[in-house]
Amino acid sequence: MSDVQNAPAAATGPVRRSRDVPMLVERARAGDPRAVARLITLVESGDEVLPQVAAALAPYGGQAQVVGLTGSPGVGKSTTTNELVRALRARGHRVGVLAIDPSSPFTGGAILGDRVRMQDHATDPGVYIRSMSSRGHLGGLSAATPQAVRVLEGAGCDVVLVETVGVGQAEVEVASLADTTLVLLAPGMGDAIQAVKAGILEIADVFVVNKADRDGADATVRDIQGMIALGERGPGEWRPQVVRSIAARAEGIDDIAAAIDKHRDWLERHGELRRRRETRAAAEIEAIALGVLRARIGSLRDGTQLPTLAAKVAEGALDPYAAAEDLLAQLGS
Amino acid sequence: MSDVQNAPAAATGPVRRSRDVPMLVERARAGDPRAVARLITLVESGDEVLPQVAAALAPYGGQAQVVGLTGSPGVGKSTTTNELVRALRARGHRVGVLAIDPSSPFTGGAILGDRVRMQDHATDPGVYIRSMSSRGHLGGLSAATPQAVRVLEGAGCDVVLVETVGVGQAEVEVASLADTTLVLLAPGMGDAIQAVKAGILEIADVFVVNKADRDGADATVRDIQGMIALGERGPGEWRPQVVRSIAARAEGIDDIAAAIDKHRDWLERHGELRRRRETRAAAEIEAIALGVLRARIGSLRDGTQLPTLAAKVAEGALDPYAAAEDLLAQLGS
Repeated sequence: MSDVQNAPAAATGPVRRSRDVPMLVERARAGDPRAVARLITLVESGDEVLPQVAAALAPYGGQAQVVGLTGSPGVGKSTTTNELVRALRARGHRVGVLAIDPSSPFTGGAILGDRVRMQDHATDPGVYIRSMSSRGHLGGLSAATPQAVRVLEGAGCDVVLVETVGVGQAEVEVASLADTTLVLLAPGMGDAIQAVKAGILEIADVFVVNKADRDGADATVRDIQGMIALGERGPGEWRPQVVRSIAARAEGIDDIAAAIDKHRDWLERHGELRRRRETRAAAEIEAIALGVLRARIGSLRDGTQLPTLAAKVAEGALDPYAAAEDLLAQLGS
Repeated sequence: MSDVQNAPAAATGPVRRSRDVPMLVERARAGDPRAVARLITLVESGDEVLPQVAAALAPYGGQAQVVGLTGSPGVGKSTTTNELVRALRARGHRVGVLAIDPSSPFTGGAILGDRVRMQDHATDPGVYIRSMSSRGHLGGLSAATPQAVRVLEGAGCDVVLVETVGVGQAEVEVASLADTTLVLLAPGMGDAIQAVKAGILEIADVFVVNKADRDGADATVRDIQGMIALGERGPGEWRPQVVRSIAARAEGIDDIAAAIDKHRDWLERHGELRRRRETRAAAEIEAIALGVLRARIGSLRDGTQLPTLAAKVAEGALDPYAAAEDLLAQLGS
């Protein structure tokens, strides 16, 4: 494992001058894990040089398969990720992992700091692993994650695993940046029903029933296959795969890797890879543009414009819609 | 209870023509519950005449005390609200209730439809009660609720109770539009700790320990008083009150009403009422302005601009920040 994660403190020195960025990108492309770490830190911090980082990385995006891996706490996401990294390496892939799961043992070093399992890959230079906190970012997770994926693509990863917890809108959003989405379930957790409720069924390309040696595994597989059968799809449309695994015993992992490869083939054959990336890029552009506008409105908070308007609204001299129009006029929008 | 809630279907006819709005406001001010119902429905639906409704209501805002009432499911929010309405009526107040609590028996007629308890007020023309769904609004709850409060103010309510569940950011946001925030707790629910975690402690002006006849009530009161004692406050600053109640037996309700009155006196004496309203107005203006900008960006999604930019980003010819700048330039921002 390259020490992207192990050396964040040392790697987060000031990178304020714009000329540092192209150099960092060059070093990251040459495989320097410290440069990769710095770039992700910049991306995560929402640093003012972020647009420059994005500009420097732009030519190197788009060649990795982004695999989202999501599931409730306790289904075995980190164990599966760990084994999957091994299987993907065996298939010759360079692998990046972004762990955005607050419950994951290798997420949020400051919170848990337990990266024991991933130390399996500690000596493998073909693997980058990075925890990302799901809180406290300007513009939220959705702003930082696509750029972090670009950093890993720039560093030569051809598969980037993005691990999230499958609960909540933020996680579904993150999953939406994946080319291929894996949903992990475990028997007897009522997950099949949960998956339907959370809208996860719609986003899953591959279902992994982990802990498949447990009671109820057959029923869970049957439930999912039943739900898949109910879904209407045209000829040539992808039919979600169902794979069984026992990640703790490294069983079924090759089947997961095979399903990922199969889905990539399908994506490429049907022009879906390009389509998904364009959809993602559009969402990213929109999010950035909204963030800029939000910041501009926020800047008026410290001036006299917004307080003046607010006072008028509070005393009933103006309605809030007219005030908002005024505010936008002052922004020049 | 005026039949704002009982007749929503009949009251939601088309109000598209702008000349209807001033008439509705006039009728609402004269105490016509159907007009009040229609206006709240317009506000809730995010109808295009919303800015007109806001303009027509603007002169009549600001005289009601907005009381937020929040707490976990099971603490007895609806029973307390019901009794509190009675106590406030006895003090001569005209009372409006906005129930935005999905677990509340009188919330979301379509979901639960059980308004049994509130039928205590069914014959009282000085009480307006309205359920609001916390989902599916353009711009979210935060956009609709302040306008619904204005409708009730316009209809002559001098106290508006806004009932929400005390979990989640959305509810804390709604509580932030209150002049006075009541946090309901019950013994033995670990609520004191939950309150700290959820940041509810900071927003509470009055703590109500309901079900005070249960085991652990003394401990809960002690816990809260301990937390209040730890908080630093300057001279003249409001010190949160702790009140015990057994709403199911109508005990302690007058104490809650007295605490609400006391807080209003304090707000007025310290200029806080005006300050809170200005802060709220500022937040409201910002939210509306952002909504307008979001809609404008959204309108570009259907044109060729955003897809063209997204394709360039997807192929690496452009980075997303430069694309966002382009997009904003096209918006004229």
